Amino acid sequence: MEDIKAFAFDVDGVFTDGLVLAMPDGDLLRQFNSKDCFAVRTAVDNGFPCAIITGGVSQSLLHRARSLGIPDEQLYMMSKNKVTDLLHFCQRIGIEPSQVAFVGDDIPDIPAIEAAGLGVCPSDAVAEVRSAADLVSQFPGGRGCVRDLVEHVLKSQNRWLFDPENPWKGNHPDHITRFAQFTGKNVVK
Amino acid sequence: MEDIKAFAFDVDGVFTDGLVLAMPDGDLLRQFNSKDCFAVRTAVDNGFPCAIITGGVSQSLLHRARSLGIPDEQLYMMSKNKVTDLLHFCQRIGIEPSQVAFVGDDIPDIPAIEAAGLGVCPSDAVAEVRSAADLVSQFPGGRGCVRDLVEHVLKSQNRWLFDPENPWKGNHPDHITRFAQFTGKNVVK
Amino acid sequence: MEDIKAFAFDVDGVFTDGLVLAMPDGDLLRQFNSKDCFAVRTAVDNGFPCAIITGGVSQSLLHRARSLGIPDEQLYMMSKNKVTDLLHFCQRIGIEPSQVAFVGDDIPDIPAIEAAGLGVCPSDAVAEVRSAADLVSQFPGGRGCVRDLVEHVLKSQNRWLFDPENPWKGNHPDHITRFAQFTGKNVVK
Amino acid sequence: MEDIKAFAFDVDGVFTDGLVLAMPDGDLLRQFNSKDCFAVRTAVDNGFPCAIITGGVSQSLLHRARSLGIPDEQLYMMSKNKVTDLLHFCQRIGIEPSQVAFVGDDIPDIPAIEAAGLGVCPSDAVAEVRSAADLVSQFPGGRGCVRDLVEHVLKSQNRWLFDPENPWKGNHPDHITRFAQFTGKNVVK
Repeated sequence: MEDIKAFAFDVDGVFTDGLVLAMPDGDLLRQFNSKDCFAVRTAVDNGFPCAIITGGVSQSLLHRARSLGIPDEQLYMMSKNKVTDLLHFCQRIGIEPSQVAFVGDDIPDIPAIEAAGLGVCPSDAVAEVRSAADLVSQFPGGRGCVRDLVEHVLKSQNRWLFDPENPWKGNHPDHITRFAQFTGKNVVK
Repeated sequence: MEDIKAFAFDVDGVFTDGLVLAMPDGDLLRQFNSKDCFAVRTAVDNGFPCAIITGGVSQSLLHRARSLGIPDEQLYMMSKNKVTDLLHFCQRIGIEPSQVAFVGDDIPDIPAIEAAGLGVCPSDAVAEVRSAADLVSQFPGGRGCVRDLVEHVLKSQNRWLFDPENPWKGNHPDHITRFAQFTGKNVVK
Repeated sequence: MEDIKAFAFDVDGVFTDGLVLAMPDGDLLRQFNSKDCFAVRTAVDNGFPCAIITGGVSQSLLHRARSLGIPDEQLYMMSKNKVTDLLHFCQRIGIEPSQVAFVGDDIPDIPAIEAAGLGVCPSDAVAEVRSAADLVSQFPGGRGCVRDLVEHVLKSQNRWLFDPENPWKGNHPDHITRFAQFTGKNVVK
Repeated sequence: MEDIKAFAFDVDGVFTDGLVLAMPDGDLLRQFNSKDCFAVRTAVDNGFPCAIITGGVSQSLLHRARSLGIPDEQLYMMSKNKVTDLLHFCQRIGIEPSQVAFVGDDIPDIPAIEAAGLGVCPSDAVAEVRSAADLVSQFPGGRGCVRDLVEHVLKSQNRWLFDPENPWKGNHPDHITRFAQFTGKNVVK
């Protein structure tokens, strides 16, 4: 855990319990866990680049990734080959795959789990993935798996740092916060 | 299980836990399980035709079925008589009902469960259905029932085949994947 | 149970687990259980008038009630006084309150629970309601409470009748079913 | 509990189980518990000012707060420093922080939990918050935590008062209720 410098995550079954809400226009919407989101945002703010690598695609994921501090270039949607995308992410940020923790829960995630330095899966991943992973979280997808991993890695490096009285440095200048309070519009988007 | 050549599924209580989100325009939306969806897609790709037979109707189901590789003609919505629709599906794909596994969870599903070669229900089906079924899954609807059945049938025939480095053959040429990554639009629809 | 001729239901915590999805326009959306809905529809089709009496209001409830066979006049939204609305329902259909089963889960439901012949609550109703009810279901709201009650009442009168090969008499003529299959539009609305 | 005169609540993980539904436009939607909502509304009607202090922002929260009887000025969205907002709320309603119960579940909530007279957290709050809180609810977020706290505080002061036959004094004159019944429009907004 002390060697991990970046994280890459599958979405369905990792950030979520695997359920997708099927919309009339074909879009699939997901429920994220705010405790997981806090952890990823804290990781990014403390210098751990993060990526999302998913076979799915939705504008909702674009917005969610941006809110977590993940740049569009590190959001791989409609991924055909997750290990290829994982290697692309490593090259982009200039680290080795051995320095990345990858979290996945189903068969398409196995090559990336094996290629990553730390291959992780939620407790409710399918059997093949649990066998392939270096670490099976004690928490299921969407219910603590991401938070627990990120928190442990950052703490092991003394970088689980968050100042509640000065959070998310640089974000949301005062006039935007006031605008948001008045309109309820999510100006992050 | 070795004789099964096709699958037909009810939706509510089978692909889902039975909950439907009631929308202001009267539409009902559902949450699908991505692990189930992976299994159905894998079945289709390995030559097992699949059908959906439901009393419900929603454009969300049209899109969901297409994403799973189920052609519109094998999506029976607003079904009045599920056994009639099951027999129509069998005729369409040229197999006998004895070669089909049908999964249902409530009273309207019983005739189709009895007509199918393998009548299956989730662990939380109503009592009458559990009595009528050949196989009661150990998993409830929306939480593993579909995945478990499909995986067992395909494995029993050595056809649970998926190459993570070359998934979903023929789908999503590169320019569409790139477009999806840039826009977040679900171009499958 | 043999004397019950009609049903009246609160919504939140009875048809649902009490959760409401808050939408940007102030609407509140709910998840209904398809097994409950089957039971209510079966009750209506077998001659048991049903009413919904709720403090909430949403177009989604209008559509949901219609799909269950409940006429608009028996959907009491934004109810200020549930016992008044219960008595209005009884008068409308020409029965006594002693012949109605009412299901509620929270303090505003108590007078109607006491006024009804059979006052019922889900297993997870608040303590005051569990004390006031004649019958505490063994199932929680949204997870079997409605289905179990309706099924027991109808069975006790030998009227739990449903023909899977000829369901929902009179509804959905063939051309509408075909239209629905082609478009995915919920023509019930 | 006898000294508490007002309440302030975080949203995610307190009114909810922490899950947020990510929408295509970047908005995040939440599921509230109707039993919690009844409690907050009852508190407001019995003279306990309530505030919501959240790092999130959504028009859905504006509407939800209004429905609970919380004025826009006591809804702090995109809060950067929750203790600052808590003190602002106290000043606005003219009470001391020692007279406020604050409920939070994650690290950004800790200063406000410590500043409030009664710092409360749900049973599933993160470890640091459970350590900082004066009171760890026996109920998790979205599943009884808010209802239980509010009910206990009001009962300890003999102010858990609600008349089911005359609820929500002053609200919803008859012509609005009739309009709502006819249209299903949520005229509260």
